Amino acid sequence: MHEKIVQGILNGERRMAARAISLIENEDPNKHKILSELYPHTGTAFVVGVTGPPGAGKSSLVDRLLTILRKQGLSVAVIAVDPTSPFSGGAILGDRIRMQEHALDKEIFIRSMGTRGSLGGLSRATKDVLQVFDAFGKDVILIETVGVGQSEVDIIKYADTTMVILTPAGGDGIQAMKAGIMEIADIFVVNKADMAGADRTCTEISMMLDLSGAKQWRPPIVRTSTLDGSGINEMFAAIEKHRLFLEESGQLQKVREGRIRRDVLDLIEDKLKNTVWAQVCGSENFELTVSRIMSREMDPYTAANQLLSSINLDDCKIF
Amino acid sequence: MHEKIVQGILNGERRMAARAISLIENEDPNKHKILSELYPHTGTAFVVGVTGPPGAGKSSLVDRLLTILRKQGLSVAVIAVDPTSPFSGGAILGDRIRMQEHALDKEIFIRSMGTRGSLGGLSRATKDVLQVFDAFGKDVILIETVGVGQSEVDIIKYADTTMVILTPAGGDGIQAMKAGIMEIADIFVVNKADMAGADRTCTEISMMLDLSGAKQWRPPIVRTSTLDGSGINEMFAAIEKHRLFLEESGQLQKVREGRIRRDVLDLIEDKLKNTVWAQVCGSENFELTVSRIMSREMDPYTAANQLLSSINLDDCKIF
Repeated sequence: MHEKIVQGILNGERRMAARAISLIENEDPNKHKILSELYPHTGTAFVVGVTGPPGAGKSSLVDRLLTILRKQGLSVAVIAVDPTSPFSGGAILGDRIRMQEHALDKEIFIRSMGTRGSLGGLSRATKDVLQVFDAFGKDVILIETVGVGQSEVDIIKYADTTMVILTPAGGDGIQAMKAGIMEIADIFVVNKADMAGADRTCTEISMMLDLSGAKQWRPPIVRTSTLDGSGINEMFAAIEKHRLFLEESGQLQKVREGRIRRDVLDLIEDKLKNTVWAQVCGSENFELTVSRIMSREMDPYTAANQLLSSINLDDCKIF
Repeated sequence: MHEKIVQGILNGERRMAARAISLIENEDPNKHKILSELYPHTGTAFVVGVTGPPGAGKSSLVDRLLTILRKQGLSVAVIAVDPTSPFSGGAILGDRIRMQEHALDKEIFIRSMGTRGSLGGLSRATKDVLQVFDAFGKDVILIETVGVGQSEVDIIKYADTTMVILTPAGGDGIQAMKAGIMEIADIFVVNKADMAGADRTCTEISMMLDLSGAKQWRPPIVRTSTLDGSGINEMFAAIEKHRLFLEESGQLQKVREGRIRRDVLDLIEDKLKNTVWAQVCGSENFELTVSRIMSREMDPYTAANQLLSSINLDDCKIF
């Protein structure tokens, strides 16, 4: 079955890409086989992350960006990730975007993702879906996340260029920016720039950037308004400029290499963890050990040593 | 050296207990040996967790509780954990409590802990310090945590009885209670009960308890005031009642068994993780593999399989 899916995706069959994504979301054991065979065909998509507090206008900006990207003849995928939502399969964003001009555009693939299990699982699934879209031949993949918590930071780190969207509203745009968000921003977008306080917001961001010290790339601050579309071209130009910077400075290579390093280690660690659970937990020996620790005949450290020595990695394989 | 520390702790030498705690905080390799030898002498201390939003009056309540416990002739240790603070070694709480009557009481051992590295590390260190105090012969150990985030929930789960402290202020006591906090509370304390809104706060907690369904133990709601000391005896009585419930229902046995199960697995998983880092990362083979993945000659899943098969667990021991 997995050969058909892989071949379908490489042939550009939308249905097969959707199928692979479902398998990923359901943690199907076939997913690694598929991702493994898709892998040689990845590495060409450019990934743009869009994050910021709720109500900052992320979706409208993504919409405007889609129009520009399509005019350039680029094919695009959008992954809308909502760590606070249990929904999946396109419900949320689908409803929202169905009204828009892009709904009938076959070169745009939109997918919403929410948590089913752990946040770590969502982050892993997002990474895997990225691979599918990449192999499927998308030129640009946009990842939109709701909110600015740690889980969003974990997800957005798969982006090559990350835009942080803020608004002048109440001045708590800046308050909402945790240290983590400051670090991941490659571009700041002050949306709703027609509102009062936009100047102050830009100044505050600028001051924070001054404080964070000199770096090879200083994140530009772009003012946008989705009301009249002003600043959207500048936003796109900033993305282009950052992409060129990444390529020319060798940063893109470096960042992607670091990501691969982390990915391989994560795969190994997850697999080892599963092996421990399967071999240790629930075994008669483990239950006996726990009761001996309870009665103080044994201590947890000696027990861990004994159990470690009994772990067998012979069948410990990803697929 | 570790024999001297272990013997000292069992002889009731305060200095040696402090020494062991420092080794734990510094992640000294000797710590497992010490904890392993202390373990047969643990299991008698009763652990009370105190948590709640900043400003709820946790420290004053802990102070009042110390007075009652000491009057009963019980020896007590306090671990004050602040996940947002990088301090350690008694600075914060020390300053605060030094003014109090308990400062000169040799039967009270107070220790503040903050993060040095990860929050996971803080949670592990708290658990280890608990063991030291337990072996040191403390009858009651109080764990006080600041705030109500996930890290506090992780730390407070080592308590046998958990008190969640709230105040009527602004009514956001209830707002601050995440689902996680509701689940861990064995006793609710509405402090500053002389303030307006105390009735409403109690009613809201009661309604939330109704919604959460029938359980063997319904957390009582105790009103306290640290101004005139009212309700403090009732708070102590509630702790006593919960302790009796835990013992008579067999819950204490069950919870502690679950904790041991989790602890042993954590020890194994952490050790495996360290082994992977030591054997895989930085090896020439790993660097070669990463560059082959970068050039698409290999995929991360096949690479993880190969690296997994090269892991050697022969020297993978806790101590």
